[in-house]
Amino acid sequence: MTNIIGHFINGKIIEDTAHTQDVYNPSTGRVEKQVSMASRATVEEAVAAAQAAFPAWRNTPVMKRARVMFRYKELLEQNRDTICRLIGAEHGKILHDAAGELQRGIENVEYACGAPEFLKGDYSKNVGPDIDSWSDFQPLGVVAGITPFNFPAMVPLWMFPLAIVCGNTFVLKPSERDPSVGLFLAQLLQEAGLPDGVFNVVNGGKEAVDTLLTDARVQAVSFVGSTPIAQYIYSTATANGKRCQALGGAKNHAIVMPDADLDNVVNSLLGAAFGSCGERCMALSVAVAVGDETADRMIAGIKEGMKTLKVGAYSDNANHFGPLITAEHKAKVESYINSAEEQGATIVVDGRKPDLPAEYADGFFLGATLIDGVTPDMKSYQEEIFGPVLQVVRVKTMQEALDLINRHIYGNGTCIYTRDGEAARYFADNVQVGMVGINIPLPVPVAYHSFGGWKQSMFGDLGAYGRDGARFYTRRKTVTQRWPTSEVREGAVFSMPTLG
Amino acid sequence: MTNIIGHFINGKIIEDTAHTQDVYNPSTGRVEKQVSMASRATVEEAVAAAQAAFPAWRNTPVMKRARVMFRYKELLEQNRDTICRLIGAEHGKILHDAAGELQRGIENVEYACGAPEFLKGDYSKNVGPDIDSWSDFQPLGVVAGITPFNFPAMVPLWMFPLAIVCGNTFVLKPSERDPSVGLFLAQLLQEAGLPDGVFNVVNGGKEAVDTLLTDARVQAVSFVGSTPIAQYIYSTATANGKRCQALGGAKNHAIVMPDADLDNVVNSLLGAAFGSCGERCMALSVAVAVGDETADRMIAGIKEGMKTLKVGAYSDNANHFGPLITAEHKAKVESYINSAEEQGATIVVDGRKPDLPAEYADGFFLGATLIDGVTPDMKSYQEEIFGPVLQVVRVKTMQEALDLINRHIYGNGTCIYTRDGEAARYFADNVQVGMVGINIPLPVPVAYHSFGGWKQSMFGDLGAYGRDGARFYTRRKTVTQRWPTSEVREGAVFSMPTLG
Amino acid sequence: MTNIIGHFINGKIIEDTAHTQDVYNPSTGRVEKQVSMASRATVEEAVAAAQAAFPAWRNTPVMKRARVMFRYKELLEQNRDTICRLIGAEHGKILHDAAGELQRGIENVEYACGAPEFLKGDYSKNVGPDIDSWSDFQPLGVVAGITPFNFPAMVPLWMFPLAIVCGNTFVLKPSERDPSVGLFLAQLLQEAGLPDGVFNVVNGGKEAVDTLLTDARVQAVSFVGSTPIAQYIYSTATANGKRCQALGGAKNHAIVMPDADLDNVVNSLLGAAFGSCGERCMALSVAVAVGDETADRMIAGIKEGMKTLKVGAYSDNANHFGPLITAEHKAKVESYINSAEEQGATIVVDGRKPDLPAEYADGFFLGATLIDGVTPDMKSYQEEIFGPVLQVVRVKTMQEALDLINRHIYGNGTCIYTRDGEAARYFADNVQVGMVGINIPLPVPVAYHSFGGWKQSMFGDLGAYGRDGARFYTRRKTVTQRWPTSEVREGAVFSMPTLG
Amino acid sequence: MTNIIGHFINGKIIEDTAHTQDVYNPSTGRVEKQVSMASRATVEEAVAAAQAAFPAWRNTPVMKRARVMFRYKELLEQNRDTICRLIGAEHGKILHDAAGELQRGIENVEYACGAPEFLKGDYSKNVGPDIDSWSDFQPLGVVAGITPFNFPAMVPLWMFPLAIVCGNTFVLKPSERDPSVGLFLAQLLQEAGLPDGVFNVVNGGKEAVDTLLTDARVQAVSFVGSTPIAQYIYSTATANGKRCQALGGAKNHAIVMPDADLDNVVNSLLGAAFGSCGERCMALSVAVAVGDETADRMIAGIKEGMKTLKVGAYSDNANHFGPLITAEHKAKVESYINSAEEQGATIVVDGRKPDLPAEYADGFFLGATLIDGVTPDMKSYQEEIFGPVLQVVRVKTMQEALDLINRHIYGNGTCIYTRDGEAARYFADNVQVGMVGINIPLPVPVAYHSFGGWKQSMFGDLGAYGRDGARFYTRRKTVTQRWPTSEVREGAVFSMPTLG
Repeated sequence: MTNIIGHFINGKIIEDTAHTQDVYNPSTGRVEKQVSMASRATVEEAVAAAQAAFPAWRNTPVMKRARVMFRYKELLEQNRDTICRLIGAEHGKILHDAAGELQRGIENVEYACGAPEFLKGDYSKNVGPDIDSWSDFQPLGVVAGITPFNFPAMVPLWMFPLAIVCGNTFVLKPSERDPSVGLFLAQLLQEAGLPDGVFNVVNGGKEAVDTLLTDARVQAVSFVGSTPIAQYIYSTATANGKRCQALGGAKNHAIVMPDADLDNVVNSLLGAAFGSCGERCMALSVAVAVGDETADRMIAGIKEGMKTLKVGAYSDNANHFGPLITAEHKAKVESYINSAEEQGATIVVDGRKPDLPAEYADGFFLGATLIDGVTPDMKSYQEEIFGPVLQVVRVKTMQEALDLINRHIYGNGTCIYTRDGEAARYFADNVQVGMVGINIPLPVPVAYHSFGGWKQSMFGDLGAYGRDGARFYTRRKTVTQRWPTSEVREGAVFSMPTLG
Repeated sequence: MTNIIGHFINGKIIEDTAHTQDVYNPSTGRVEKQVSMASRATVEEAVAAAQAAFPAWRNTPVMKRARVMFRYKELLEQNRDTICRLIGAEHGKILHDAAGELQRGIENVEYACGAPEFLKGDYSKNVGPDIDSWSDFQPLGVVAGITPFNFPAMVPLWMFPLAIVCGNTFVLKPSERDPSVGLFLAQLLQEAGLPDGVFNVVNGGKEAVDTLLTDARVQAVSFVGSTPIAQYIYSTATANGKRCQALGGAKNHAIVMPDADLDNVVNSLLGAAFGSCGERCMALSVAVAVGDETADRMIAGIKEGMKTLKVGAYSDNANHFGPLITAEHKAKVESYINSAEEQGATIVVDGRKPDLPAEYADGFFLGATLIDGVTPDMKSYQEEIFGPVLQVVRVKTMQEALDLINRHIYGNGTCIYTRDGEAARYFADNVQVGMVGINIPLPVPVAYHSFGGWKQSMFGDLGAYGRDGARFYTRRKTVTQRWPTSEVREGAVFSMPTLG
Repeated sequence: MTNIIGHFINGKIIEDTAHTQDVYNPSTGRVEKQVSMASRATVEEAVAAAQAAFPAWRNTPVMKRARVMFRYKELLEQNRDTICRLIGAEHGKILHDAAGELQRGIENVEYACGAPEFLKGDYSKNVGPDIDSWSDFQPLGVVAGITPFNFPAMVPLWMFPLAIVCGNTFVLKPSERDPSVGLFLAQLLQEAGLPDGVFNVVNGGKEAVDTLLTDARVQAVSFVGSTPIAQYIYSTATANGKRCQALGGAKNHAIVMPDADLDNVVNSLLGAAFGSCGERCMALSVAVAVGDETADRMIAGIKEGMKTLKVGAYSDNANHFGPLITAEHKAKVESYINSAEEQGATIVVDGRKPDLPAEYADGFFLGATLIDGVTPDMKSYQEEIFGPVLQVVRVKTMQEALDLINRHIYGNGTCIYTRDGEAARYFADNVQVGMVGINIPLPVPVAYHSFGGWKQSMFGDLGAYGRDGARFYTRRKTVTQRWPTSEVREGAVFSMPTLG
Repeated sequence: MTNIIGHFINGKIIEDTAHTQDVYNPSTGRVEKQVSMASRATVEEAVAAAQAAFPAWRNTPVMKRARVMFRYKELLEQNRDTICRLIGAEHGKILHDAAGELQRGIENVEYACGAPEFLKGDYSKNVGPDIDSWSDFQPLGVVAGITPFNFPAMVPLWMFPLAIVCGNTFVLKPSERDPSVGLFLAQLLQEAGLPDGVFNVVNGGKEAVDTLLTDARVQAVSFVGSTPIAQYIYSTATANGKRCQALGGAKNHAIVMPDADLDNVVNSLLGAAFGSCGERCMALSVAVAVGDETADRMIAGIKEGMKTLKVGAYSDNANHFGPLITAEHKAKVESYINSAEEQGATIVVDGRKPDLPAEYADGFFLGATLIDGVTPDMKSYQEEIFGPVLQVVRVKTMQEALDLINRHIYGNGTCIYTRDGEAARYFADNVQVGMVGINIPLPVPVAYHSFGGWKQSMFGDLGAYGRDGARFYTRRKTVTQRWPTSEVREGAVFSMPTLG
């Protein structure tokens, strides 16, 4: 069988056929490839390769490490089409959306090019008489990344360029749903001049994950996925003495104020709710309208806008979004729509029976769905759906909307639509959410800021990428120095020395 | 019974006599006070007070919060004597040493006064067309600190001033061995103008600790203590979804190079090994001499210097160090000396039978002890002793010394004695230890740097105090903002937005 | 005559009576003191004292230098009343206003306490193989400050605490109109523990200024005053090889948008226009109303509000503002009102004949004056008035208002009153002014940001106080270090070395 | 005549033949090209183009501006050979040396790619109740660079990539001795996607310079050249209200300690003294030997090493260095050697009659020259020679050497050769020089630090490139914001507002 997706260890593709799993094309519903599922031994081989590559890579001056990233950026740009097609074929997102994902990923590579600046430590002369002290941010060693199916390029690119430019070596375990991109990213990085062993990819499932979580050589784990798994990853990694950042699920609300620019609201919500079929942790899945008039106008506009939406295969850029990732996931999303209906909500636009050409009849498609009259007690409100479903909650005041958001277990992203400076400022200050948009429905921070939710949306101290990412991937070492002189003779000091 | 040490909750001393435990004066070996041991309910009351005080404190402008710290610094300085005597009476360290400890603590209050500067977020205009983005570091809410007996003033002062100035509210659980200082620090902070409920102290043991680790309202835990407890704290707190920094044990080595200034070595090692009776996580307990000649000269010097050392009660500033904290701990330290002897090491100076006046005959004293010929297989080498014991290991080369340090499970502090720039730089770069001294035996970073060991000496991403501490006690919020104009109408965007 | 105000040189008050000048009480118009006017020789003596004190002060660890500032803050707070009375008696501002000035000054002392943090340099390991590099911000040496009459406490406090905590020594030349405060500030700093010679005050006029500008030992000059003098100071100091920051005049406009909160506008403009009798470089002297309706409502409100204003002597806290600084300045302000009237503007409220009790009949008082129908061609619009005069310009659009501001030669402060996020953001982005308020009429940056106007309002690269101030008062030194090893032999390198 | 080197204005090469000047090939001494000398009108045209391009470029998001720099780096690397040959043909430096120069220049382009990070402003929430404040670093407008002949690629690359990425537009006036590189750099930047008018090059002499210094549209001037011109530039630009940084001459000393690694000293001094024919402002031109034995051993080593040096044309990479820039400059360097001889120094190796093949007989060559017994009173010691001349001064102690350096009028670069940590630290702390090497003879800071001398070697507050450069090319704007609420009514405030 030729279509085996293997691992990338120590600069070589390892085609390991002992255990494999089907990889679907979600647009057709057909199995087109098989992915190798790494055993503990395979993962340990990758960790060993990373461990062996560490000493030399750590000692490579940071400017040289950064230059690999400069070259990598060029290669990623030259290979845009290939990468987007790999994403589309296994994930299903439309090419224009894959291009957006990749661009966001490349921006993290651009940020990594600035490592000489952001890796600077602090230097203090004379912390005491003739005593100097400085900090040095040293790489950790072997670092692991475990990444989700919904951004097979972007989320890995949040992690490994930064970890590697900081001097670490890396083992990536991508999602087994769409594993090809990860391998291709690894090959390009090798082409960019990265020494073998510094970046490794293992495909697999729980065995691979657990190996990474328990292997003593792995110093840190970055994870993005659902909240239950994030909790497992965080508690297991930390119990094994590793540092860990684990990003989980979300339920992102937008507050629509009476003074909002409705055209903007409608246009931007269509993309934020249904783009990528709603399979984004920053997808805007709940619109909280302040006042019934606002709600009615907004729903009318969205309903009208939804008529223009086209769902279909990834390869046609005229489509707005594609299929869900698996048949199982499609069934789960449908069940949320059903439950909302059963619990009394109104299905304004029903996407459960999308109209598709015959060749995509077995694809995992679902149409865009709009639900009104959603209330906090509904299952569809409380849990993350991760599908093309926008739910509307009606409230009377902005404070009621804010309280609603602050009571939810998730705190990833949120947005307010308003023209009023005071409302926006009060919202941004008081909402218990990590990433806040003001008239920006998907407030994903740019690469030179950092990504991180609050509450059940993130476990760990430091966010992904940006300054936080660099701090996560380095260990502080503080050196304090005094040189003896022949003239100076010091008496023994038995008290706690104060340096001052 | 009058000498009950209670709790400090919501601005009031709570004298809770349901469960109490003896507090000793280690210099005399007598029980002089009782400490209340908080039940779950008492701890929850403290957490509730902190939770209630949070909203108003969080909204207090940072300059006002900082001014409480300015005033607190003044009060700590005015009450130096009282604090040092409280430390001495329950911990046993000599007054001059307590003064050094307190001074180090005050330096963290001074650092906290600079909060307006270090709490600044990043602001970026035009992250996209007419889109701005900035970060805001918001307080977490209720934060807990669990602190050890050996620095009853300094370690709490590493934590709560910084946490509080960042806008958090705090529950401190000090060591039940020397709990009076914590209470007094709380009263002074109230006097400095801190609103009730922002800072609370609960005394107690495992029940108190476990309540703090599992109460959902507690957002973060800072801990300093031994490594087994640190691991327990870290894994329990993180499994409960909290952020945690847990600092553990140490085995700090000094490498003595042939070109070292021997007078400096001898003088500074005497203090670093025996000061505070060796009960410091930064105590220098292993001297690694490079070459037998170096070893012989160094041992001769130290032996000579040890003749001048005076051990005795805390109240006499002529003493160099005082008793150990308990009779049990004294027995444990003796057992390490015994085991070294049994495993073949040479007891050069034996402190097991210190000569003391009758009134201190029941105190928990041990004399300074010097052991030569220690090897890595010995129990006394592998474990942390936490007593007045300096062990000498002899090696042939600097590389052998460095490898020795890097193989040890701890990585807290270390030091090299040399005049040679290259040796010092190679050592600082390659030693796997978080705090490195060059001719500085106790390289405790100053308050405007950060404290943190590596390997089994610290669990967590961010060190104590300084910039790391401020980052630990705050949560990043990133706001991305665009204002609508009536002129601008935007098409729906279904791709991953790139802002660029 | 006993009331001679002398100099403060090398820790001593020098009463030099060779040349003196009258010091008035502007509330009564009477001469109550004489100020010594320093000759070149006296200034050189101060510079020599500062030069002599530099080496030891520079070598004092920054934590110790900062502690002088901690103590200084306490003393300033304890002496609030004395300082405010000194300000009032010579400047004329009401005590509550003097207290505000002093508080702003103290905030700069608070900022200076954080010097250990903001003086940190950057440290980079391995800028090349085994080559490290770091920066160290060293003090300049002797620094001079030349300060204006209108903030006799605050402006000096913007400068010398920061310069001194950075390790410089300082010579202050305060305004000869109200020189007593500067001397008192110097005495308190000595009491706070500053070594003699580190801070010196010379009173005087042009001879003193020119000596400071040309003495080769003076490394840098900070100046605040009018624009013509600022230009002279800047070009003279720089031509003499010194670094210089020279802050000049202003003409601060507020744009009042139709959606502004009118009550807020009126209340805040009254204070911003007439507070301190308009003698502030951040005074809001031009209100640009967008639309005639806005203008009419605003003028009606301000007119009404002005009825409540009380002008009078500094010592009565019920007064809103006091006299101008001199009879000459009063005549000049009147001439601007006259010229506006002559050029066709409408005097809505006329303060030219204020009603005052007999004992203040000779004071330099002028009542609050409101002028409507001001146009850009009028003299009173083009020049800085520095008196209690608020002028109204009427425009049709916000863009017209913005263009007006951007065409003015000054660019110190400005403000927009609006509730609209977009308008505020567009304004802040595009206005060519250094300090921008959004619904804040006097947007003086807090002490941990920096003060600085644009265009003719400031000459120099770096603003006053905050990070900019610290950079101004220090010189960067970059050290690059490699240690030789006996093993490494390097070939001669004749090319430009690249370190990479 | 075809070989006219013109200007680059608004995206086009302007071949202006009104006034031209000869451009020599220094290796042959022949005139091979003519350079246009811009009139006032031509420079004003360039300034006008830059002014017109400013608004759009300023509003381009910084990530997009940075991407032009990413692409520029690629193009510079692809065109290495062309650039190095242009440098060699007009400047004379050997190709390997030109490659080093270019690489250092490219590193500044790499740094510029990180603009999104280093242009971040500070954000403070709640500087007062519900008042926020932030800083924004805005571009200045049109910025000019005036650059010297000795680094025709590197020094312009210190300036314009950083200025442009910060949002400024730029007019470069390169040296008229070797003007071709500047034009080529401009064409590549256009190819990288820079909009026309953002970067312009004018060739010329004093008229061009004076136009840039006095044109009111030019906001800032960066200069590198000799000290007398630097002083003229600095005083003229600042008198015209511009910000200015003007880097001047140097006299860089190395202290050679008795414990130095002599092989390292000899090898590295050969390159540092004679590389690029000594025409570097960081050239090491004075070796201060501590002790006669050190001096004798060092001189013997250098003398031996000099036998291997090859001087010749730029195109042969076997040569170590090439000719001087002009016949006049060659005569001047010879006159310094003559004067040293006349004032009593010993010419150890005499390069005044270098042996060259016939085709280079008219080139401006001078051989490497070593002079012993130099004393501080000699002309050749006091002034900058800028030729292949290494002078040795003998002293008895390190302190004497340090005093010597600190008494010199220049303070650009310096170096100490030692193995001793204490000596190196004392030297680095106390030497009054901006760039300090420890065993590094040419301590040019890397691109992510900043370049700047002290004393007569630099005029201005902020160094070239790195963080300092970015601060120089931007103006701070501080915004303070509060939004009105209908509930809040505030009383008028007449006191200085304190925000606290």
